[in-house]
Amino acid sequence: MVQLVHTIKAVRDAVADARRRGLKAGLVPTMGALHDGHGSLIEAARRECGYVVVSIFVNPLQFGPTEDYDRYPRTLERDVAYCGEKGADLVFAPEVREMYPSPSLTFVSVEKITDTLCGASRPGHFRGVATVVSKLFNIVLPDVAYFGQKDAQQAAVIKRMVSDLNFPLTVAVVPTFREPDGLAMSSRNRYLSKEDRQAALVLYRSLQGAMSLLEHGERRPDVIRSYLRSTIEAEPRARLDYADVVDPETMQPVTEIEGDVLLVVAAYFGEARLIDNMLFSLPVR
Amino acid sequence: MVQLVHTIKAVRDAVADARRRGLKAGLVPTMGALHDGHGSLIEAARRECGYVVVSIFVNPLQFGPTEDYDRYPRTLERDVAYCGEKGADLVFAPEVREMYPSPSLTFVSVEKITDTLCGASRPGHFRGVATVVSKLFNIVLPDVAYFGQKDAQQAAVIKRMVSDLNFPLTVAVVPTFREPDGLAMSSRNRYLSKEDRQAALVLYRSLQGAMSLLEHGERRPDVIRSYLRSTIEAEPRARLDYADVVDPETMQPVTEIEGDVLLVVAAYFGEARLIDNMLFSLPVR
Repeated sequence: MVQLVHTIKAVRDAVADARRRGLKAGLVPTMGALHDGHGSLIEAARRECGYVVVSIFVNPLQFGPTEDYDRYPRTLERDVAYCGEKGADLVFAPEVREMYPSPSLTFVSVEKITDTLCGASRPGHFRGVATVVSKLFNIVLPDVAYFGQKDAQQAAVIKRMVSDLNFPLTVAVVPTFREPDGLAMSSRNRYLSKEDRQAALVLYRSLQGAMSLLEHGERRPDVIRSYLRSTIEAEPRARLDYADVVDPETMQPVTEIEGDVLLVVAAYFGEARLIDNMLFSLPVR
Repeated sequence: MVQLVHTIKAVRDAVADARRRGLKAGLVPTMGALHDGHGSLIEAARRECGYVVVSIFVNPLQFGPTEDYDRYPRTLERDVAYCGEKGADLVFAPEVREMYPSPSLTFVSVEKITDTLCGASRPGHFRGVATVVSKLFNIVLPDVAYFGQKDAQQAAVIKRMVSDLNFPLTVAVVPTFREPDGLAMSSRNRYLSKEDRQAALVLYRSLQGAMSLLEHGERRPDVIRSYLRSTIEAEPRARLDYADVVDPETMQPVTEIEGDVLLVVAAYFGEARLIDNMLFSLPVR
């Protein structure tokens, strides 16, 4: 039976109690509006940890002034039931005033990795993410924290933050969960009209095509970039934000393809901004 | 018998072991060159905690390019012996490469509180302090961390950081420890020539005079500021950095004296930059 708590004290007490019982604590930080992508994170935590906490908090600090903070979907009751189905032990759903009793003067920022891609398109976004995730780590004190590969830049930022600041935990990155037709699951997919939902498949198609080029031996990053860009731009309902080939740790554009590279795309469909990515590993000879 | 360790793993293991034995862990973060000011922090930790860790790390991140990082005094052997005398259990003295195996991309910054005083005179200083203290908190996982009131702005920054980021610990601020003639103890006092050592007493004298004015009913902050400034400027060997009356939590200059105010001064004597402060509490009527 999943338990729902709203205060920092309650989640700390619950995790301390679980730890006294010898259980390993897993944290799945979310903004709610849960879908099967989150489900796969909860399932991964369930497999590896004796005590699974899902946090649900739409963090104002990571939204820009023109972004969708106010209309971001909030479905707490359904989310809690879903966490229960997936086997979570505790849902931590604080109010904004519990997390920010006064405006935060303290910020955690990760340089370089956040200069590109979503970091460039969404100024301040990753500073808001790193700050709230630091808070959640200090509140929940998990042994393992789970993030989705779908938000590849976020995962890279959090991994670097954990390493740089010596957070006493492991970051687990879980593969992107897709709809049967390939669309990466995202809470923002529910913003899509029927036509845009169909058009949004172009992100997956562009990545698959680029992977196929790479698998057939293409090694010029600019050719891959052009392919991604022109594929997305050929979809009239898509407005391209970025399409790039980057280093999966630093998120900097690569000049040659060696080792792992990450193909990353972002585009608007109507007002919804969607992202997706795929990792290509050069076969070892 | 005090134990000396150099690795993150060793300090984590030692603290985890102490905690399993039911002991509360206290951390005294220092840059070494220990004096009786540090001694009073260690003694406070000893009184309140079952397990006392002193960290000794001259953190390059908090020194400006023209500051005294290279010549900052390093006296590890003496420091470890001193920690033993004062009753510490563990000294954690990492090398730079243990704390920064690669250059940190992650920074913790505290806004507003760091805009004034030492924050204005030493750009980047408090970002370096907040970042390394976050690392030390995540490495040692103390229940209580001890800081000196002598570094009042640092204490305010750390308290705010702990509150904003929900670090699961208490910050204890220990009163300034002074030489018999009133000079606040500081590792940088050893930079002083005999003449400058004598001249540096002007900081204490200026604060005492200002406290006396306040105790006799003076309530105009600018009168107090002028008094501090002119007292220090009357000492030919002193080069004033700042003299101010500020809010002890925000470190912003006050426009009127109500509640607690902090008198703060900083000046150079030769190449040594010294700071001092005193807290004035308005008597409750």
